[in-house]
Amino acid sequence: MSKTDPGNFFEDFALGRKIRHATPRTVTTGDQALYTALYGARFAVHSSDEFARTLGYPRAPLDDLLVFHVVFGKTVPDISCNAVANLGYAACAFGVPVYPGDTITASSEVMGLRESSNRKTGIVYVRSTGVNQRGETVLSYTRWVLVNKRDQTAPGPDVAVPDLPDSVPAGQLAVPEGVDLAAYDTGAAGSGHLWEDYAVGERIDHQDGMTIEEAEHQMATRLYQNTARVHFNQHVEKGGRFGRRIVYGGHVISMARALSFNGLANACRIAAINGGTHSAPSFAGDTIYAWSEVLDKFELPGRSDVGALRLRSVATKDLSGAGFPYKDDEGKYEPAVVLDLDYTVLMPRRG
Amino acid sequence: MSKTDPGNFFEDFALGRKIRHATPRTVTTGDQALYTALYGARFAVHSSDEFARTLGYPRAPLDDLLVFHVVFGKTVPDISCNAVANLGYAACAFGVPVYPGDTITASSEVMGLRESSNRKTGIVYVRSTGVNQRGETVLSYTRWVLVNKRDQTAPGPDVAVPDLPDSVPAGQLAVPEGVDLAAYDTGAAGSGHLWEDYAVGERIDHQDGMTIEEAEHQMATRLYQNTARVHFNQHVEKGGRFGRRIVYGGHVISMARALSFNGLANACRIAAINGGTHSAPSFAGDTIYAWSEVLDKFELPGRSDVGALRLRSVATKDLSGAGFPYKDDEGKYEPAVVLDLDYTVLMPRRG
Amino acid sequence: MSKTDPGNFFEDFALGRKIRHATPRTVTTGDQALYTALYGARFAVHSSDEFARTLGYPRAPLDDLLVFHVVFGKTVPDISCNAVANLGYAACAFGVPVYPGDTITASSEVMGLRESSNRKTGIVYVRSTGVNQRGETVLSYTRWVLVNKRDQTAPGPDVAVPDLPDSVPAGQLAVPEGVDLAAYDTGAAGSGHLWEDYAVGERIDHQDGMTIEEAEHQMATRLYQNTARVHFNQHVEKGGRFGRRIVYGGHVISMARALSFNGLANACRIAAINGGTHSAPSFAGDTIYAWSEVLDKFELPGRSDVGALRLRSVATKDLSGAGFPYKDDEGKYEPAVVLDLDYTVLMPRRG
Repeated sequence: MSKTDPGNFFEDFALGRKIRHATPRTVTTGDQALYTALYGARFAVHSSDEFARTLGYPRAPLDDLLVFHVVFGKTVPDISCNAVANLGYAACAFGVPVYPGDTITASSEVMGLRESSNRKTGIVYVRSTGVNQRGETVLSYTRWVLVNKRDQTAPGPDVAVPDLPDSVPAGQLAVPEGVDLAAYDTGAAGSGHLWEDYAVGERIDHQDGMTIEEAEHQMATRLYQNTARVHFNQHVEKGGRFGRRIVYGGHVISMARALSFNGLANACRIAAINGGTHSAPSFAGDTIYAWSEVLDKFELPGRSDVGALRLRSVATKDLSGAGFPYKDDEGKYEPAVVLDLDYTVLMPRRG
Repeated sequence: MSKTDPGNFFEDFALGRKIRHATPRTVTTGDQALYTALYGARFAVHSSDEFARTLGYPRAPLDDLLVFHVVFGKTVPDISCNAVANLGYAACAFGVPVYPGDTITASSEVMGLRESSNRKTGIVYVRSTGVNQRGETVLSYTRWVLVNKRDQTAPGPDVAVPDLPDSVPAGQLAVPEGVDLAAYDTGAAGSGHLWEDYAVGERIDHQDGMTIEEAEHQMATRLYQNTARVHFNQHVEKGGRFGRRIVYGGHVISMARALSFNGLANACRIAAINGGTHSAPSFAGDTIYAWSEVLDKFELPGRSDVGALRLRSVATKDLSGAGFPYKDDEGKYEPAVVLDLDYTVLMPRRG
Repeated sequence: MSKTDPGNFFEDFALGRKIRHATPRTVTTGDQALYTALYGARFAVHSSDEFARTLGYPRAPLDDLLVFHVVFGKTVPDISCNAVANLGYAACAFGVPVYPGDTITASSEVMGLRESSNRKTGIVYVRSTGVNQRGETVLSYTRWVLVNKRDQTAPGPDVAVPDLPDSVPAGQLAVPEGVDLAAYDTGAAGSGHLWEDYAVGERIDHQDGMTIEEAEHQMATRLYQNTARVHFNQHVEKGGRFGRRIVYGGHVISMARALSFNGLANACRIAAINGGTHSAPSFAGDTIYAWSEVLDKFELPGRSDVGALRLRSVATKDLSGAGFPYKDDEGKYEPAVVLDLDYTVLMPRRG
């Protein structure tokens, strides 16, 4: 029996199957320091223990997307090792905050299956969940991937496609227990713009651009213990479709989030990711820009200190966000667009 | 109203104005580990909790220049976002040591103003101060920058130029409270050369060279949450004056300090930076060398365990420090010189 | 007297001389986070405090090779600064685990000397030992280097060559005190293959490849405070034998170890390195692959929970390990082979 792990093929994903992912991970201030070095994030809640304590956190929680990447990374060997494509994700809700010293583990459940018409591949829908050492959910999301079949002549399963919400509803947006944003210090956080100041339809160009280096995206992706080969192996990729290593899509999400500080400095927590598309690959040498649009804004049940903004953040490569590049007349993404992310943030209210 | 921060223009700096800078930052052993990885620093006080404790520190303090960079980084969005040039700094005194877990915040006060004769720009002098979570000063320095005016027709302010000392006087060089260097272990620190062994006028070639990579200076500069655009955006800089990203000057200072270990291993604390000039820009691919000269040496009031050396450290690119390259006959920096730093270090005495 | 350290020449190594190496180093979760970012290691014991505690560790110990690199780095300025070549190492035994917060110091003793026949150089054998702040040994190994003589006319010492064991015997393989692998959770660790499942002679291709970047190997090598110049100075190396910086051999060892997870996921501790050869240099841009062979397997005295595997791990550049590339008919390493490492790991038993 081979000692190496071949990963799962389409046939291995039975509806309802639960997969426990390997390598529990204790996250630390070392991970957070690397995250800062990789993206330059400046959101005050994650940057300062003192700031976080004034809001009721015991200390600064890790950046939300760092938690996302760690959970996502754990699922890769079991879910997307033999994937042809990552098709999408939805219904991603962030749970309890993660603090340095917490240990994250992840598991997934197969929620849907659909064999492709060519019978060579199939779509697998999984619900992946990350928990801390107390079993509290830190993150839960659905994603679907196109996976190779081991045996193309094998009969496919019954089609089962899960219902996926357009967005995570307000009632599922978790404000961390004990946290109250009434005391939020806008001077320390770097912007006076609060929830009331944003209007649905408003668009913000985040202005700055950041160039990706090979060492950076590789270090980031390894930090997340994400083993997808296309990110690391130039010897193979030089003969591949693009001739080079592909940047982990989550790296671009984190770059867009860090860039969005300039305009969304008080978006102090990502509460949900409603959906996202990596419309084109990114490579080392690309300079990433971002702009955002307010898709919706709403109150949270029983809270006067904090409200929610649903945002679209679009990342582009080698093109400024000043013109809000997005889609052409036929609805196709413009070539410079690499990311279209629909997510929901929490922001302090004037109260 | 724009949600993004346009930064301050010359007109925004009124004499005496106090600016509170954003993003408090809790520094950690993660930051120190990254600092070690970026520069290879080996000064024993900062490398070992055990060594530091033998001298009366509660644990190893962060590298002095890491503290400098974090404070400096916070000032960038408010002070130098619209700067045409960083002209100089002076009177930089280090205060209480910073330990992992401390939270640093920064503020500045406008100390001087002088409109340029062309009325397009003006020089702003600010005194910037970093404090820890107890309000104790960790660093204070004056710098002056050439800033664009928003409206070139606007009348300029009265000229006010602060008195700047040639160097930080001995009485303002802080030996951390409770620290006594009498027990300093030269064997552990890596050199037997103490304060008595250095002579004014002595020059030391630090011998080693270190090549800068894009990923390194970007990660360093982001670690410091320094947002100056020229360091990160190749898409814009390829059309700029140099055709490439410019390395943050502080990155070169830290390289020179780390290289200076070979010859100044017992310069265990930077107590002051008297002044500094970035005489030429550095870029990825440059190999940085350094040499130092002892400008002055003096006792500290009431201390027999520790003395001060005033040093000039000169960093060069792609030229060894063996010939002590500096200025030509006309007083101009030789082309290879990128940094001329005048600073004061503490060093143990034989007692 | 020169303030810079010229390092030791062959004449400086007297038989029995003990050398205390500089710069004690407190290791932290920051170092471990960087180690993860540099190699993507996934061994559960080092990744999770919770996992480690189930086995009797107080928390996750640092990666074994991180400890090796830190100790090795300390020896460089004294032992191999003037080395022409690193010839080999042997009898490397790992002692007590190292935890975040521990402080490592290192010393060496000269165990053997042999002048070269050309009288320009000589081989120095040293036994280097790393200890923690309690004086407990964390690592001890012998290495031998070819060192320049200061004065080629000076008479050489009597020849003394230490006896070196072919491998570290089972009785010297330390299972950390209080650790019991009976409760080892293979589901969390990512593989069900235990000690019983491996057969002597079995070969495993670890499949994945990882491309080295300059910024990565430089950051790694500086993290270890290793000062060997060939790794850092492109300005000098561009005129050297290879025209470029040489990657620290230990960086490749750590890459091979991280890659070996796919096939050896439960090799939860490196207990010994029996010997190793860096058969060719590695450079930025090389893609490293690895394969392993089980050389031997044996029980540990008095233990039913854990056994030992003696392994050969071979790393190659720009050539997959699928064909197990090693040596040609004449016993010479194939050109793609860069590392031949003989080491002994501990692995849980079925009990």
